[in-house]
Amino acid sequence: MQVEKYIIEGHNNDLLTQHTRKFDFVAADVPNVKTVIQKLRDFQVAIPSWALGTGGTRFGRFSGGGEPRSIEEKIEDVGLLHSLNQSGGAISLHIPWDVPENAQAIKTLAAQHGLRFDAMNSNTFQDQKDQQHSYKFGSLQHVDKAVRKQAIEHNIDVIKHGVELGSDSITVWLSDGSCFPGQLNFRKAFQRTLEGLQEIYAALPANWKMFVEYKAFEPNFYSMTVGDWGQSLLYATKLGPKAYTLVDLGHHLPNANIEQIVALLLNEGKLGGFHFNDSKYGDDDLTVGSINPYQLFLIFNELVEGMDARSMNHASDLGWMIDASHNVKDPLEDLLQSVEAIKIAYAQALLVDTKALQQAQDSNDVARAQEILQQAYRTDVRPLVAEARLQAGGALQPLALYRSAKVREQLIKDRGQKTVATGL
Amino acid sequence: MQVEKYIIEGHNNDLLTQHTRKFDFVAADVPNVKTVIQKLRDFQVAIPSWALGTGGTRFGRFSGGGEPRSIEEKIEDVGLLHSLNQSGGAISLHIPWDVPENAQAIKTLAAQHGLRFDAMNSNTFQDQKDQQHSYKFGSLQHVDKAVRKQAIEHNIDVIKHGVELGSDSITVWLSDGSCFPGQLNFRKAFQRTLEGLQEIYAALPANWKMFVEYKAFEPNFYSMTVGDWGQSLLYATKLGPKAYTLVDLGHHLPNANIEQIVALLLNEGKLGGFHFNDSKYGDDDLTVGSINPYQLFLIFNELVEGMDARSMNHASDLGWMIDASHNVKDPLEDLLQSVEAIKIAYAQALLVDTKALQQAQDSNDVARAQEILQQAYRTDVRPLVAEARLQAGGALQPLALYRSAKVREQLIKDRGQKTVATGL
Amino acid sequence: MQVEKYIIEGHNNDLLTQHTRKFDFVAADVPNVKTVIQKLRDFQVAIPSWALGTGGTRFGRFSGGGEPRSIEEKIEDVGLLHSLNQSGGAISLHIPWDVPENAQAIKTLAAQHGLRFDAMNSNTFQDQKDQQHSYKFGSLQHVDKAVRKQAIEHNIDVIKHGVELGSDSITVWLSDGSCFPGQLNFRKAFQRTLEGLQEIYAALPANWKMFVEYKAFEPNFYSMTVGDWGQSLLYATKLGPKAYTLVDLGHHLPNANIEQIVALLLNEGKLGGFHFNDSKYGDDDLTVGSINPYQLFLIFNELVEGMDARSMNHASDLGWMIDASHNVKDPLEDLLQSVEAIKIAYAQALLVDTKALQQAQDSNDVARAQEILQQAYRTDVRPLVAEARLQAGGALQPLALYRSAKVREQLIKDRGQKTVATGL
Amino acid sequence: MQVEKYIIEGHNNDLLTQHTRKFDFVAADVPNVKTVIQKLRDFQVAIPSWALGTGGTRFGRFSGGGEPRSIEEKIEDVGLLHSLNQSGGAISLHIPWDVPENAQAIKTLAAQHGLRFDAMNSNTFQDQKDQQHSYKFGSLQHVDKAVRKQAIEHNIDVIKHGVELGSDSITVWLSDGSCFPGQLNFRKAFQRTLEGLQEIYAALPANWKMFVEYKAFEPNFYSMTVGDWGQSLLYATKLGPKAYTLVDLGHHLPNANIEQIVALLLNEGKLGGFHFNDSKYGDDDLTVGSINPYQLFLIFNELVEGMDARSMNHASDLGWMIDASHNVKDPLEDLLQSVEAIKIAYAQALLVDTKALQQAQDSNDVARAQEILQQAYRTDVRPLVAEARLQAGGALQPLALYRSAKVREQLIKDRGQKTVATGL
Repeated sequence: MQVEKYIIEGHNNDLLTQHTRKFDFVAADVPNVKTVIQKLRDFQVAIPSWALGTGGTRFGRFSGGGEPRSIEEKIEDVGLLHSLNQSGGAISLHIPWDVPENAQAIKTLAAQHGLRFDAMNSNTFQDQKDQQHSYKFGSLQHVDKAVRKQAIEHNIDVIKHGVELGSDSITVWLSDGSCFPGQLNFRKAFQRTLEGLQEIYAALPANWKMFVEYKAFEPNFYSMTVGDWGQSLLYATKLGPKAYTLVDLGHHLPNANIEQIVALLLNEGKLGGFHFNDSKYGDDDLTVGSINPYQLFLIFNELVEGMDARSMNHASDLGWMIDASHNVKDPLEDLLQSVEAIKIAYAQALLVDTKALQQAQDSNDVARAQEILQQAYRTDVRPLVAEARLQAGGALQPLALYRSAKVREQLIKDRGQKTVATGL
Repeated sequence: MQVEKYIIEGHNNDLLTQHTRKFDFVAADVPNVKTVIQKLRDFQVAIPSWALGTGGTRFGRFSGGGEPRSIEEKIEDVGLLHSLNQSGGAISLHIPWDVPENAQAIKTLAAQHGLRFDAMNSNTFQDQKDQQHSYKFGSLQHVDKAVRKQAIEHNIDVIKHGVELGSDSITVWLSDGSCFPGQLNFRKAFQRTLEGLQEIYAALPANWKMFVEYKAFEPNFYSMTVGDWGQSLLYATKLGPKAYTLVDLGHHLPNANIEQIVALLLNEGKLGGFHFNDSKYGDDDLTVGSINPYQLFLIFNELVEGMDARSMNHASDLGWMIDASHNVKDPLEDLLQSVEAIKIAYAQALLVDTKALQQAQDSNDVARAQEILQQAYRTDVRPLVAEARLQAGGALQPLALYRSAKVREQLIKDRGQKTVATGL
Repeated sequence: MQVEKYIIEGHNNDLLTQHTRKFDFVAADVPNVKTVIQKLRDFQVAIPSWALGTGGTRFGRFSGGGEPRSIEEKIEDVGLLHSLNQSGGAISLHIPWDVPENAQAIKTLAAQHGLRFDAMNSNTFQDQKDQQHSYKFGSLQHVDKAVRKQAIEHNIDVIKHGVELGSDSITVWLSDGSCFPGQLNFRKAFQRTLEGLQEIYAALPANWKMFVEYKAFEPNFYSMTVGDWGQSLLYATKLGPKAYTLVDLGHHLPNANIEQIVALLLNEGKLGGFHFNDSKYGDDDLTVGSINPYQLFLIFNELVEGMDARSMNHASDLGWMIDASHNVKDPLEDLLQSVEAIKIAYAQALLVDTKALQQAQDSNDVARAQEILQQAYRTDVRPLVAEARLQAGGALQPLALYRSAKVREQLIKDRGQKTVATGL
Repeated sequence: MQVEKYIIEGHNNDLLTQHTRKFDFVAADVPNVKTVIQKLRDFQVAIPSWALGTGGTRFGRFSGGGEPRSIEEKIEDVGLLHSLNQSGGAISLHIPWDVPENAQAIKTLAAQHGLRFDAMNSNTFQDQKDQQHSYKFGSLQHVDKAVRKQAIEHNIDVIKHGVELGSDSITVWLSDGSCFPGQLNFRKAFQRTLEGLQEIYAALPANWKMFVEYKAFEPNFYSMTVGDWGQSLLYATKLGPKAYTLVDLGHHLPNANIEQIVALLLNEGKLGGFHFNDSKYGDDDLTVGSINPYQLFLIFNELVEGMDARSMNHASDLGWMIDASHNVKDPLEDLLQSVEAIKIAYAQALLVDTKALQQAQDSNDVARAQEILQQAYRTDVRPLVAEARLQAGGALQPLALYRSAKVREQLIKDRGQKTVATGL
């Protein structure tokens, strides 16, 4: 299923007058509006293959209809999103859920949709059918060398798949850890995990990056062997220049100051990328920007400031990916909302008057610093994001068009009511 | 599979000298040791049918072998536990996981194992095959009357099953809530839920209790419609004298003072019972006493004090149940450890010098109050618990005997390596 | 010190063209804009006397200059704020920090500034010089009847002061609780506290309300005797129709869903009022809207919906007060920012398309419900708030005018650099 | 005031029979009991000078009587504690609260009490009278070089005092951070702080250590510039081999796994020492072991395992200090309880069957691993700790003797009822 170009154009024409009025209003106060629009156009967020189906919890999963049944259909779904918002020009695959049988064909299909392959994801937190060793007690941390070997080889295999598809990075998320005091020797678990990562690192092609993702808890509930940014940074530093820390917004203890972590990792040259989502209690995997959009803005504020200070390219020098998955929304609608929230936060961060902020900071003018940040945040930047989308050939209101074009209904017709995509 | 009486006796004989030395040592300092032992004997903890199989998380489930395949085998497992520790003389069933096809036969089987049927559990958090309406958006809170009706009828059906089995209570845990701001009208959701509970309440036999369980989050991650003890108490009060609040230790926000909640609910005459487990981050469902055993003791200290103040019978006036479920231990070993931890905490609470404590409180002698509590807590009461077990015909060291008798190996032989019990 | 009317008018004239452009833009999409403006005009937030000086932490206090040295100067400061934003037309006094020696004169002074006296606050968490009994171990919960009596009499005394000033409510915040397990008998502490509150309640004039404030922790770090909304509601219900629960945004456990609490208390007819502030970790007492403005909006969304459902008057049927206090901003600037944040959130809530939201809820259209809420929240409502201020005679940009008029410099000149206001 | 040797002996003689019975009972099951006792004797915990007076919160302070009025009286108090428990043979001073006017005399006084000087503590979180620059906006992070210089010089001054007294380490705890988003540039604050620490580091004598203490929040409530172990480790690593991370148990986000942090820091060779206390919500500074004694045991379990793996001397290769301070207990009683709790946890950790634990870990026998830990933890080790104390010349029951000897009454007689020690 695709939304034809002429349908998007029709949608845009209907809304153009209204859009222009709003865009002109907000643009009038943005000094460098062309640059801002261009940055917004360039900024692409990768869509994870597993977010295309309804997620679940340990208590149950309530699948919707028309979920993609194959890697080809997943690429189609991301292509469809991308055609609507021109902001999701990459897909992030998960092995073994998305093993491409014919890499060349898959690559061609993706290219037809304007998509590239973002970071590859390995899976050593589940046992697959016919898998020789179990990950019940961990993978790279495991006391049994055979299990570790299996996990290492799986990761190297994932890299190989990625090379064939033109990806240039691998995200290693380990669920390794323990559920009870005494279960693990923390020191040895760290050491074994480091050695496993080193073997995987050694298999990286020259231009590849490895992202070491951390998580505070779940599915292990006493300790996690890559549990916070400090641990991830230790691994990444010991591994070498191609290893970086990946920040998933939902993987922290309560009340953590994530924006500070981001700033410090950037300062160390070790921030690799992001998994965007939102949460209230834990790794709730909710729609980006649905719970605390100000925090998302503050994170982007650090990103813009920190990347500019290091002359980094916003669009390409870090990995941007959504990682969300839950029960109650149409997954494609959820992704449209998530991408929109990310671009709004990015646009707001681009509007921050950095010179004035620096002056306020240099004079300890705390009230003024807050005014400057909130001036950017309170501005309704949605017309800027829409304009960037319009210029790139996307829809002014992707979600509205998705609904009026009856995309989900068509997908259900094509694929059936009872499909269940791979994922959590 | 059963552990024969003579095997238990052999085990006890081997350990008796050692046990007697330890028991005599600790008993020498316990003024009312006979009463304590009797109370420990009387105190029975119900075993939930779903804790007999390996639990899982949304990331995966790693089943062990020999898990029970039917309600009969679940009863056998609880019977086996009970024969070892003489402390798990009840089973708590979950409908529809444990629908008894022949209630009379099941009742007889349970009686043979010395078991009674504790609180029945309903399930409106999952969709069952061939279920007409989905609980994707809640059950009793649902905007659609038909869904609510289905949920109400299911609960009434559960009560009927319970009546047939001789149970006298139902635990209603609702996963109802919302994942996103705006999804629910909190007020109306509360009202609809209350009305549903009222219909179920109306179907309770005269001697029955209804336990309204609360939970702070999961599987809904923005709001829960029975989210804390305050809400549960509101429902229970509006429902009437047969409705009570049920406290699950893992269902709180970080840092909650659970023992104070317990004391206040007791004071209101509205504490109904417990789901025991332990946790570090959320509803981790870990073995009781594995993370914070002092908190468990403090809870029992409030229970003993508060129940005595109301002349309640420790063993029978509240519902005691384990609710744990996780990945990495043999479920039966886990349950043996959990029951042991509960009885240790109960024994410690029975040793508290309540008169001295009251004096310390009445003179604001905080250091002394702490000394009194810790004097009981630091005492190694395991020989008291073992003695109670010995007198009741159980094993001095249930877990050791479980292992030496190779129970799990036998269960695997009987039932197979690849069985998967119903549950989370 | 006052900001003269002509200065405000000059300020407004300079900004009028710019304001009109922005107001017209946003007003064009607000159907009932006149009503919204009127509601914003009517909505007044009480300023607590202790927020007029720099706050502190247990680690230190860094006073600024020109802090008010007397109740008269505190009234002047609030009057000054009110002249700028026409939104702070009430002051909330704290006894014994603000004992009025001549109530009539104080009342007249307040009236000159257009101020009324909001809820009175008692203090039983500190020992005052020459106080007979110490509150070291609590006040209303205390084991010693003499201490309880002293605390009760103090509260009755506060009511008397309030009557003289024309206030019609008292906020009772008790720091009572315990720092260590065993220190308190929770049950008896609850009972004694209830009895104390009953005596105070009995002294309330017919038209008065009592607000029972709860707090999760601090300054007691094991238990609080009015620790959460459930406990507060228990007290308020047992007390009678003039007793209500007061919600302070910073007084919750991590991750609490405050908006749901608000909705449920409203539904029970027991919500009394608010203490506004913001926080990241605990009772941080930061500027309203500085950490999580979306949560503030969600709270106002529940307030508007729930009060409308009960036909309550937004401006007068609940008590609205700021309770913030910290180290690093000019207190008056902080209060201007806080009031602005409150009115922005209120304005956003007034813009919510309630009919559409109800439809979305009734059809479980979660994505749409989020769109509706965020449509209101993303709208830049600052011109609406400014217009309401303009119409009422306030300044278009209060903080900017406060700075350009050099208010703080003048206060320092008048009062000195080394003044220290009473407060925390 | 001192407790004479003969009084201690009398006390011990009265209790000896009872003690011997208990000691013999527990010792019978400890294979290497002599070694354990010796390790317990060697293990000394430093007492901070500020814990000798009643602490307070921002809401108030309720001083007790007889608090030390000078550094000499503080040394006397620690000496008194040490004479009772033979476990607090060091004092940790805080500058400027404890500036020694005559270092030699102070050193002699301490020696008379058998005390050495543990880590020195600097203070850049408060403004002292006549201090030129304010720390309102931080110290080493400050944007103004003059403030940073003042803070650096103060720390170097503290080192000088320490050298005179024979101390060999400095603990640098910075309250630096921010209360509001935008207030700080995180990157630059980190960089400035690092440079300041480098200057202080350069002033360290050859045999000195610098402990970099971290804290998650308070007194800054948005960000802390040394906010977690990851940040502290970054500083310590960049500083050099004499810099280490110091862990204060109360300085973490909710639910943090502190024992894992300890294990990893030890593994990196960067753990410097401890500030012991206990807490439920934040930096509550409660008596050690009063809230979660099992966690304390788990931390000691990691310490013993990790130090043994690196052949470190338990008693001398890390810094052990209490850092607690609160309202409701006699400070000396509080310290006796805290030291006792530390030694109990240490004793329990020494009893862990490390070989069996390693076997359990190597075979993923999680239930067994828990049994092994809890076997040590459930053992009533108080007689072992008492025996170590007895052998060293201390009292069998220090707190009981403190009370029966009426120490506090005597201190009040000597020093007065209304003394207030320096501190928080």
